[in-house]
Amino acid sequence: MMQELSIGVDMGGTSLKAAVVRGAEIVQRSEPVNTRACNTPQELTERLGERLRALREQYPTVRAVGMGLPGFVDHAKGMVDSLTNVPGWYDVPIRQILEQACGLPASVENDANCMAYAEWRLGAAQGMQDVVCLTLGTGVGAGVVANGQLLRGHLGAAGEIGQVSIDYHGRIGHYGNRGAVEDYIGNNELMREAKMLYATTPESAPAVLETPVHLENAAKAGCAVAQALWDDAARKLATCLLNCYYILNPQAFVIGGGISKAGELLFAPLRRYLQTQIYPPHFAKLKILSAKLSSDAGIIGAARLALDDLPHN
Amino acid sequence: MMQELSIGVDMGGTSLKAAVVRGAEIVQRSEPVNTRACNTPQELTERLGERLRALREQYPTVRAVGMGLPGFVDHAKGMVDSLTNVPGWYDVPIRQILEQACGLPASVENDANCMAYAEWRLGAAQGMQDVVCLTLGTGVGAGVVANGQLLRGHLGAAGEIGQVSIDYHGRIGHYGNRGAVEDYIGNNELMREAKMLYATTPESAPAVLETPVHLENAAKAGCAVAQALWDDAARKLATCLLNCYYILNPQAFVIGGGISKAGELLFAPLRRYLQTQIYPPHFAKLKILSAKLSSDAGIIGAARLALDDLPHN
Repeated sequence: MMQELSIGVDMGGTSLKAAVVRGAEIVQRSEPVNTRACNTPQELTERLGERLRALREQYPTVRAVGMGLPGFVDHAKGMVDSLTNVPGWYDVPIRQILEQACGLPASVENDANCMAYAEWRLGAAQGMQDVVCLTLGTGVGAGVVANGQLLRGHLGAAGEIGQVSIDYHGRIGHYGNRGAVEDYIGNNELMREAKMLYATTPESAPAVLETPVHLENAAKAGCAVAQALWDDAARKLATCLLNCYYILNPQAFVIGGGISKAGELLFAPLRRYLQTQIYPPHFAKLKILSAKLSSDAGIIGAARLALDDLPHN
Repeated sequence: MMQELSIGVDMGGTSLKAAVVRGAEIVQRSEPVNTRACNTPQELTERLGERLRALREQYPTVRAVGMGLPGFVDHAKGMVDSLTNVPGWYDVPIRQILEQACGLPASVENDANCMAYAEWRLGAAQGMQDVVCLTLGTGVGAGVVANGQLLRGHLGAAGEIGQVSIDYHGRIGHYGNRGAVEDYIGNNELMREAKMLYATTPESAPAVLETPVHLENAAKAGCAVAQALWDDAARKLATCLLNCYYILNPQAFVIGGGISKAGELLFAPLRRYLQTQIYPPHFAKLKILSAKLSSDAGIIGAARLALDDLPHN
């Protein structure tokens, strides 16, 4: 079964990528579609349809297509309810559109769930029954596996851990909710915090201070301000993970995306903050793992999900 | 099947109760055992064994026995890993002890999970696939149903929502964790807060101020301090529920126990704080319900679980 081919599609805020996938391997990519150049779901899905038909022509044995989208997706009904940062996507019957566009059975899912699905089925969390797979970037997303199943919740909105509050009187976020962790450690907020902190300390800021990589380099070069920022981000992320832990009692956290690339700068304080806030015999059995799959995890997970959803599998 | 009899046992910090149960109905109670008068698990289980044998003699058709315990219970292995406020309980093979004591198939589970199980199978959450059932008292406990299954997690410790942090730089709690909601709205903390607040305002405190009921009466009599305290408790509880919501996306919260008896004093501000912090189309589909079963929910849930665990059911 692992040798079967399927197509994975990952729709992001700026580009839509599709590829033929075998297991965790990308066999053939198609030219990305610029999401922003498409004004309507129809325009985008038409261009996507062209890509899918071309891939299928080239690889006639592909059996299914899976697509991850950034927002609320109803997997069972095959509908996009709404997308977070892409206007115009409301109640779009995306599964049906995909099936008509390329004639393959289709599955649709939230993008963070696709990434988590990839890590669970083919990556760092293989074989685990209870695991939370995070992706840290502009947003903080996750997919939850519980009782050996992807957890979707009542409206397909489970795993929105970026919205988990770490402070009940904190900042007001996207949904009017206070203290959402994403509003503290999302890439943009992290950099805003960094600029503010450098502006109020004698320590001189890095010449370029635009992305977390600059903050990573500064910390590795010994800058105390940058080091404190990483520690603080780890503390906040730890609180979010503690909340997941006490609710779900997972065996592992798998952490990927953006700032997770800072490695031990993030992971060392993260482990420390978790260790001091979890019952020791339980902490001893908790795994904190780096994601195994690359930034293609979304494509790979969508492709895998589509195969797993086929009736005979 | 609903007419079958089983025995439910609910072990609390002060007393252990056992009863013959049919559906959600208590058929026959036995004399409670004073937990504190028993120094060892063996002493307690011997007295419990007497009760179970007597109940079985009186109701020879009982088919199984289920027991809820206050702490970490491994349902699959039938072991108590440790109990929270009862010393001496480590690695106790409680299922085997029960089975040997009365000759019935036994199931064991965390007590909050038993209460949730009762509400899910026989109470306010019947038929739901995704629901969080809370009990508010000295502690804040819960059981989580996800994908139509009781969620236990890797070590049987899922649903410990009293430990969910609402403030990453908050009070240090039971496990060294900061800002646990239980450390703000548990009965004792609520009353401590009340005494502090009355001591620093001109408003005079109720003549007796020992339990949340006194605070409830004061608020209903128009005392602004008491009303503010309820609003504040609702705000903190809302943050905990928001965290559950964003992680699990349940269809409903079922709320029972202690301070939930204050009714709209708690529920009205709770609904308001949730409504302003959840995406409106999603909030519209979220149910916030009062628990249906009484303080016997723990017994009823344990008894039901034991029947559901029988091989042919």
